[in-house]
Amino acid sequence: MLKAVFFDIDDTLYDTSGFAKLARNAALDMMIDAGLPLTTSEAYDLLREIIAQKGSNYDKHFNVLTKTVFGEEKPLLIALGMINYHNVKFALLRPFPRTTSTLIDLTSKGYRLGVISNGITIKQWEKLIRLGIYNFFEEVVTSDEVGFEKPHSRIFEEALNRMGCKAEKSIMIGNKFNEDIMGAVNAGMSAILVNSQLTKEEKDLIEKEKLDVRVIADISDLQKIL
Amino acid sequence: MLKAVFFDIDDTLYDTSGFAKLARNAALDMMIDAGLPLTTSEAYDLLREIIAQKGSNYDKHFNVLTKTVFGEEKPLLIALGMINYHNVKFALLRPFPRTTSTLIDLTSKGYRLGVISNGITIKQWEKLIRLGIYNFFEEVVTSDEVGFEKPHSRIFEEALNRMGCKAEKSIMIGNKFNEDIMGAVNAGMSAILVNSQLTKEEKDLIEKEKLDVRVIADISDLQKIL
Repeated sequence: MLKAVFFDIDDTLYDTSGFAKLARNAALDMMIDAGLPLTTSEAYDLLREIIAQKGSNYDKHFNVLTKTVFGEEKPLLIALGMINYHNVKFALLRPFPRTTSTLIDLTSKGYRLGVISNGITIKQWEKLIRLGIYNFFEEVVTSDEVGFEKPHSRIFEEALNRMGCKAEKSIMIGNKFNEDIMGAVNAGMSAILVNSQLTKEEKDLIEKEKLDVRVIADISDLQKIL
Repeated sequence: MLKAVFFDIDDTLYDTSGFAKLARNAALDMMIDAGLPLTTSEAYDLLREIIAQKGSNYDKHFNVLTKTVFGEEKPLLIALGMINYHNVKFALLRPFPRTTSTLIDLTSKGYRLGVISNGITIKQWEKLIRLGIYNFFEEVVTSDEVGFEKPHSRIFEEALNRMGCKAEKSIMIGNKFNEDIMGAVNAGMSAILVNSQLTKEEKDLIEKEKLDVRVIADISDLQKIL
């Protein structure tokens, strides 16, 4: 019988992508109101470009944005952007509607829960704390700590080691086929894809290789399967 | 007639010291609840020591605290500390009761307002934005930008230049005798001390040198003087 259930965080336990867009627009609207000479949609495109270039964990996107537009950094606009981004983000940071009840259900059934996440350790803990769900997880294993990102087997093996669980008694839940699903399968675990759909090629691969992979539409479907 | 009124930020426009203590205690209580093996008062003393050593603008006080206690950093405790510190700080960040009405009064009388502050530019803007008063100020001049801290004359001269005001038509309001008051006086401005009391030596100095320095008990007293 399965013993350990591991989760990805972003877009698996909560709606990262949805709130990020709202928070960015709120930030840019305040900056435009204070003198940024762009439309919201021009500013949004420029910010996305900067995030793509610098990476989402870079913490000076708004500095680069003002420098790009004005030729120099504009402290008031940067501060307005950062504050409004964070205000909206923290106000909206909530688990998916059925995340918490699903975690309670799995805990009550005796499963041990963990997290395997690509990201910066303290930032990932911060998300779990702000989401109000950090107490559910025995171990939170990040690429930052391990030095390898999903889908590399090392991050899955480290998580299994820390929990003292065997791969064949563990399952990974995530929204990214390559990172979460194939990473887990290659480490000997089974896997469930959530909030995402399989492509034709992915379906064929699963069938051909007889991979232990399932797809669910909503995290609460775990309650029926597990 | 006076034209420009410059303000210090911390403990002049809002109660920095009071809320910092509350926010630190809230953070430490959460960390203790999650396994930090200290009493609140032991933890508070240790945190103060770390802040004194590393400076208040260092952003990894809780990292150092867990490393000191456990011999290694504890990401969950660090994240709990940071989040609860910021939650309490942002909830409590309010101007002194009569700050806003005083700024409105001075603006309505035709004074031009500015800020002269020792600190990091974006952090100081962040405070003014979160306090809801940033629109009052034509110029916010920080030591970070100028490269000189109060009481150095250069930061006062830079503020006067940017406003296009003469020193003898400008006044500085602050809570620190040496930084705010003597700094302004040495740059040729007059000055008003608020939220602080003069020592015997400071009184003697003002009298002996006939300095243009006054003392008020509350920021709202500016409405009677100016």
